[in-house]
Amino acid sequence: MKPFHGSSLLSQSTEHLIDLAIAEDIGSGDITTDHLPDPAAKGRGEIIAKESIVIAGLDIAKRTFEKFEPDIGFVSRFQDGDNIQSGDVIAGITASLRTLLIGERTALNFLQRLSGIATNVSGYVKELGNAKARLVDTRKTVPGWRVLDKYAVRVGGAYNHRMGLYDGVLIKDNHIEAFGGIPKAVEYIRKQVSHLIKIEIETSDLNEVGQALEAGADVIMLDNMEIEDIRSAVDLINGKAVVEVSGRVCKGNLKRLAETGVDIISVGALIHAASFVDISMRITSALSQK
Amino acid sequence: MKPFHGSSLLSQSTEHLIDLAIAEDIGSGDITTDHLPDPAAKGRGEIIAKESIVIAGLDIAKRTFEKFEPDIGFVSRFQDGDNIQSGDVIAGITASLRTLLIGERTALNFLQRLSGIATNVSGYVKELGNAKARLVDTRKTVPGWRVLDKYAVRVGGAYNHRMGLYDGVLIKDNHIEAFGGIPKAVEYIRKQVSHLIKIEIETSDLNEVGQALEAGADVIMLDNMEIEDIRSAVDLINGKAVVEVSGRVCKGNLKRLAETGVDIISVGALIHAASFVDISMRITSALSQK
Amino acid sequence: MKPFHGSSLLSQSTEHLIDLAIAEDIGSGDITTDHLPDPAAKGRGEIIAKESIVIAGLDIAKRTFEKFEPDIGFVSRFQDGDNIQSGDVIAGITASLRTLLIGERTALNFLQRLSGIATNVSGYVKELGNAKARLVDTRKTVPGWRVLDKYAVRVGGAYNHRMGLYDGVLIKDNHIEAFGGIPKAVEYIRKQVSHLIKIEIETSDLNEVGQALEAGADVIMLDNMEIEDIRSAVDLINGKAVVEVSGRVCKGNLKRLAETGVDIISVGALIHAASFVDISMRITSALSQK
Amino acid sequence: MKPFHGSSLLSQSTEHLIDLAIAEDIGSGDITTDHLPDPAAKGRGEIIAKESIVIAGLDIAKRTFEKFEPDIGFVSRFQDGDNIQSGDVIAGITASLRTLLIGERTALNFLQRLSGIATNVSGYVKELGNAKARLVDTRKTVPGWRVLDKYAVRVGGAYNHRMGLYDGVLIKDNHIEAFGGIPKAVEYIRKQVSHLIKIEIETSDLNEVGQALEAGADVIMLDNMEIEDIRSAVDLINGKAVVEVSGRVCKGNLKRLAETGVDIISVGALIHAASFVDISMRITSALSQK
Amino acid sequence: MKPFHGSSLLSQSTEHLIDLAIAEDIGSGDITTDHLPDPAAKGRGEIIAKESIVIAGLDIAKRTFEKFEPDIGFVSRFQDGDNIQSGDVIAGITASLRTLLIGERTALNFLQRLSGIATNVSGYVKELGNAKARLVDTRKTVPGWRVLDKYAVRVGGAYNHRMGLYDGVLIKDNHIEAFGGIPKAVEYIRKQVSHLIKIEIETSDLNEVGQALEAGADVIMLDNMEIEDIRSAVDLINGKAVVEVSGRVCKGNLKRLAETGVDIISVGALIHAASFVDISMRITSALSQK
Amino acid sequence: MKPFHGSSLLSQSTEHLIDLAIAEDIGSGDITTDHLPDPAAKGRGEIIAKESIVIAGLDIAKRTFEKFEPDIGFVSRFQDGDNIQSGDVIAGITASLRTLLIGERTALNFLQRLSGIATNVSGYVKELGNAKARLVDTRKTVPGWRVLDKYAVRVGGAYNHRMGLYDGVLIKDNHIEAFGGIPKAVEYIRKQVSHLIKIEIETSDLNEVGQALEAGADVIMLDNMEIEDIRSAVDLINGKAVVEVSGRVCKGNLKRLAETGVDIISVGALIHAASFVDISMRITSALSQK
Repeated sequence: MKPFHGSSLLSQSTEHLIDLAIAEDIGSGDITTDHLPDPAAKGRGEIIAKESIVIAGLDIAKRTFEKFEPDIGFVSRFQDGDNIQSGDVIAGITASLRTLLIGERTALNFLQRLSGIATNVSGYVKELGNAKARLVDTRKTVPGWRVLDKYAVRVGGAYNHRMGLYDGVLIKDNHIEAFGGIPKAVEYIRKQVSHLIKIEIETSDLNEVGQALEAGADVIMLDNMEIEDIRSAVDLINGKAVVEVSGRVCKGNLKRLAETGVDIISVGALIHAASFVDISMRITSALSQK
Repeated sequence: MKPFHGSSLLSQSTEHLIDLAIAEDIGSGDITTDHLPDPAAKGRGEIIAKESIVIAGLDIAKRTFEKFEPDIGFVSRFQDGDNIQSGDVIAGITASLRTLLIGERTALNFLQRLSGIATNVSGYVKELGNAKARLVDTRKTVPGWRVLDKYAVRVGGAYNHRMGLYDGVLIKDNHIEAFGGIPKAVEYIRKQVSHLIKIEIETSDLNEVGQALEAGADVIMLDNMEIEDIRSAVDLINGKAVVEVSGRVCKGNLKRLAETGVDIISVGALIHAASFVDISMRITSALSQK
Repeated sequence: MKPFHGSSLLSQSTEHLIDLAIAEDIGSGDITTDHLPDPAAKGRGEIIAKESIVIAGLDIAKRTFEKFEPDIGFVSRFQDGDNIQSGDVIAGITASLRTLLIGERTALNFLQRLSGIATNVSGYVKELGNAKARLVDTRKTVPGWRVLDKYAVRVGGAYNHRMGLYDGVLIKDNHIEAFGGIPKAVEYIRKQVSHLIKIEIETSDLNEVGQALEAGADVIMLDNMEIEDIRSAVDLINGKAVVEVSGRVCKGNLKRLAETGVDIISVGALIHAASFVDISMRITSALSQK
Repeated sequence: MKPFHGSSLLSQSTEHLIDLAIAEDIGSGDITTDHLPDPAAKGRGEIIAKESIVIAGLDIAKRTFEKFEPDIGFVSRFQDGDNIQSGDVIAGITASLRTLLIGERTALNFLQRLSGIATNVSGYVKELGNAKARLVDTRKTVPGWRVLDKYAVRVGGAYNHRMGLYDGVLIKDNHIEAFGGIPKAVEYIRKQVSHLIKIEIETSDLNEVGQALEAGADVIMLDNMEIEDIRSAVDLINGKAVVEVSGRVCKGNLKRLAETGVDIISVGALIHAASFVDISMRITSALSQK
Repeated sequence: MKPFHGSSLLSQSTEHLIDLAIAEDIGSGDITTDHLPDPAAKGRGEIIAKESIVIAGLDIAKRTFEKFEPDIGFVSRFQDGDNIQSGDVIAGITASLRTLLIGERTALNFLQRLSGIATNVSGYVKELGNAKARLVDTRKTVPGWRVLDKYAVRVGGAYNHRMGLYDGVLIKDNHIEAFGGIPKAVEYIRKQVSHLIKIEIETSDLNEVGQALEAGADVIMLDNMEIEDIRSAVDLINGKAVVEVSGRVCKGNLKRLAETGVDIISVGALIHAASFVDISMRITSALSQK
Repeated sequence: MKPFHGSSLLSQSTEHLIDLAIAEDIGSGDITTDHLPDPAAKGRGEIIAKESIVIAGLDIAKRTFEKFEPDIGFVSRFQDGDNIQSGDVIAGITASLRTLLIGERTALNFLQRLSGIATNVSGYVKELGNAKARLVDTRKTVPGWRVLDKYAVRVGGAYNHRMGLYDGVLIKDNHIEAFGGIPKAVEYIRKQVSHLIKIEIETSDLNEVGQALEAGADVIMLDNMEIEDIRSAVDLINGKAVVEVSGRVCKGNLKRLAETGVDIISVGALIHAASFVDISMRITSALSQK
């Protein structure tokens, strides 16, 4: 099963981030590699997993090297979403020694972070098992990385909440006050936004859940509620709106939350608590390959 | 003590990252806030620590809101590097409700990540105590964030290794092979680079340490060596070069490594294993403040 | 009634378009104005409607002049969405003669096009009267102008369809074939997209309408259907999905289409057939004002 | 006859506008096409004229698809400036289904607008017949589109006035006052601008025509004058300057204006009153082509 | 006499060049100034001429410092075009010590280069005396500096040839061959370019001058001709076209060339042979001013 | 001997400068070349040295033409750093006539300036002979050209001082005062900057040299000192720091300065006093080649 299509990932914003990353690492020049006696000498690089991971970002890594040398060879028997064991060769790259040395750190930084998120997410997904609830991310992403962070979440097996403030309405307590109550907020916004956008309301108790339901919310978020209240809310809503639970979620209570019958469980930590996974690169010059 | 000067942080690259972050969150418009009945109504936001942290990024958070409304009020009794207790108000912002609602997530994402790094670093620094060894970061940073990630390391009390490939020479095993041995590598590069740049050599055993020393390396990195070998290397080098230890470092062995007499201990996890710290924002409209 | 809030319009993309427009008009310099004997001499400009219009773009016009001189005076008794009679002074600007002369054409080009769309739209809206159907635009916009074109539609009293390919799912015939039929398409996409996004299906006959309904489409588009088929489709759908009609719509049949009971009528010509309205600027130097 | 050379059209500014257009349509991703079961499946698209048009923008359309997939096939038996009948296949494109679906709207928006202008212009040109007067555009262009709008005018068979404020001097009434009269304005500016730039003066009556003539203007614009005054002005000028007529021009009086003997007739509506022409795209997957 | 208006100089392209210059000098940070104990301490800088110069670029220098600190004080009793003696204080700046130290080199680099050109040019202008011939530059400018280089030429008292390939037609020998002779080239291009653009032909002997004259060239360039041929050409042309002489021009033969009666003398060395003039900056902290 | 590797030169910043240069020369279009009867006709260009030079910038010239036509032929038997005699063909280019004509001036401007610097530098290097002192540049570069200007210095046979404020510490008199003396400055900065960066102190007399030495400076700059003082300083320092001499250096005293035993001699005029060297391009159409 190959659900992730790299080509769609290499959008304008991703290209720009790769350019930024290269610029910040190389600046006015790589003063070590620039002085290589024979920078055009061919070499071979192997990207290797040093722990068990879910891989994400292969196209980004490839693209990073291509920025230095358009016609490198980049071969991998994996694709984004695959499980890779410690010690496995993730990809092999043939290019000039200079390209390998100068692109290594930037390519790895992308790969380690994206795979770090995917691996983290897949742990949550495994914990959730075959519950019907959908695990989703939040807007707690690293500035500049929204598209990539959310891509890695999908690679890891979970789903995306809205991408930003433009593709979904989420009315929070401060909005509600500003609009003068839940009914007015829903009525007013429904009249303005595109008919393809759903409206979600954040609620903090059963009373608010009732108001949101009555106002015709498409999705109702139960924010930081106790598990019994969540159960009561699910009963009250009874399929008339999608139910999302948010706040205080960790791997430990994921299963229990799912069993309340909620549709969506959102977890910021899918992204923001992920570390780099351990991936390194081994370079061999053509010389030493003989 | 005020070692961190925010103004120098707001460089061109930082401005660009704030712009990127706003663009990716807002896109074609905040479809909730754009429909507020009275978006110009004044409000007050309070940024609050939900756990004990070392704060970093106050100027960035302020600047984010200013992008929407240049003359907001932003008051804080803290500055970057301060310890803040759970529940403390980090900063108060007076602005239009629209600005507060639309800027909240982006400003917090910067603040949570930067403080996350600073807080993580300060844990290592505390562990190191008053050892003479200097704790430094690496180039394992999130692409696009090099300057900010390394700023947060300084805020947390540690130091920076080179910023990129342009402001320091670090000759690794692959370089050495390409140059034809350590002596040739040092000789050749020394002849080319600016007289203000030092040359560091990565070594993996005592034999290589000896060669690096003889070649006149300014700094010698002991990569992934056992503690006894590190001790022997320090003896061998005997002050004739700066000694850096790298690899397999964690909080647990930090003190022991420092006691070997090395000058520099580099740890990628200072940055790449830091999570967001918990910071949130409470918004009150002028209305509800009465 | 003041439904349009200019400040939210001056987003990053709008700023960029103003910069582009100035660059393409001025290039290496305004070789007439650059040689004014006294370019700093103060002047006054009046922007005047030369026909009856719905005004749109006041903030953009103001911003264009501010790019040359940040502290100009710009006073208008109107706001976007107001009807303005031929001969009315739309706005008065006090600035240096140089700023007035150099900014005039670019500011007017924005104002004339945006008001052209708003005025065009308001003609359709008037024709529709108080029918319950919502008049919406399409993605047939001038490249680079998506956000502004769609803003002008709202100013003119109509509504927006999705902004782009990212904030709504519209499955067309080619997609359907690629997915292997309507049911599979809906099932597959529903599983992937955010729970805040609705799914619309384009249909060309009653058979497809039936399939879309069964597949659980949120919105069903009736594309280029005859009026009797539209009536039958509305009956068949019977409130179980939002109904949009598209194609062959003109002012002449707008009312009749609305009376079929459809919810949404989409018209590309709202934007792409709008001409500039006639607006000009009269400049008087301080000298001649005595 | 092949007077239009696409390659010169694909300048930096045009590339940038295509990028902008793609960015605004796709944003964080095409959420329909990104979920295609087999996005790499090959397809064929046919761009078809739905009315009789003068085509413009073929290279832009091609380039738009190439942004997604560099090696698409794009074949057309036409070139910019050709007349195309309703029903004709304008171009055939072979590419992945994903590229066809994701690029369709943006490519068509360029093609429909540019051909809309060219078609509009060609109507005026036909009306003018073989009169010696040259039909030219103005600076009333859509912001961001100056180069493309004026290109389409040439494709339609008319000519360009100056591109912007940098490549021609046009002294209007406000300039004249600021310089202290026509003679001083011409004298002062002539002394400053490059010897390759001509100076044009806007006049509103015969008296001003006389002054412009005496001041040595290269070109004299007769702005909003009655037809008899235009005739008198042409007599008065008598070949000593190029004569341009401007204002109140429409298709109806074009011929009559030309017969007065003026050299240049400028019409803003060539560009700003052009609608999209009707062009659509039919996509067939490789599957259905069997 | 104040012929140069700085404000028109600070166009978009100039702003961009200042940003580039700052970026390349400061990169990831000024590692000396960033560690000042009190970077906000106020200081005063004095920009001082170390030789006799014609000043150019005051607004650029000011703008450079403003990029770091918007509300600096910048006072000068001179303006662009003034002669300044060695030892004179060109401008005084009050700002934070950090701003003065970090902006100094970039501001001086602009000032030294622009004044270098202006000073160089003014030497040629003096040599030319009150001859009627106009001294102009060429397109031999430093890439990225076209607008600024040509501005400095005007400041120095000479004139500009065309700015680029877009605002004037200059048909060279290679063009002539491609068009099939001078008459065809002029005829063909005249038919296409705006009526505000003049056509210049490069000629290398009297035969070509005759052809250019007959073809109706507006300007005829005599390229690398001997002085007697230049005299003959002027006689032949006899006021029917503007005459430009180019090639082999130096200060030594400038007067003699002017006496041939040519209208225009173009000299690439005005720009490309100018060195930095000697200007330095003295900084005094508030402390030492007591 | 081939010490210069073009590929490392074509970094992001260089690409950007080429784009800027093309934009400023071509703007809205090359109005001569755009009207060529057959712009696709093939031609051949030869870049020719018109004086004896050291060549620099071959890759930049090639890249400039590639911006218009990716698959041009560009053949040279030289590489950067080679001495080329007057009359030699530097490179041959096969491309469309349009590409040759439109790219010529921009490509030559890069080549003439870079070779101008390299040639200028090589004159100083020859003068220095085989003295052990290293000749270096300064930060007096043309804004926007830092990387390229310093590249040309290396091509000419000299060395680079720091690239900017980010890759070396140079403490000048104003810094010293701000820090409260040389010892405090060194101590404070050493504690903050990366362990790969050296610290240089500017001194103006022997007293300051003594302080710098005691403070442990890595490099000591003798600024504008008399030759006897330089000799005394070299004696005093006695190998304990690198010694740089700066100020009042010209070709005439270069040798004498080197003989004092200093390690580094820095000369701003290497870059800022270099003129364009004389290089031109001859274009022959395929037609005339028969």
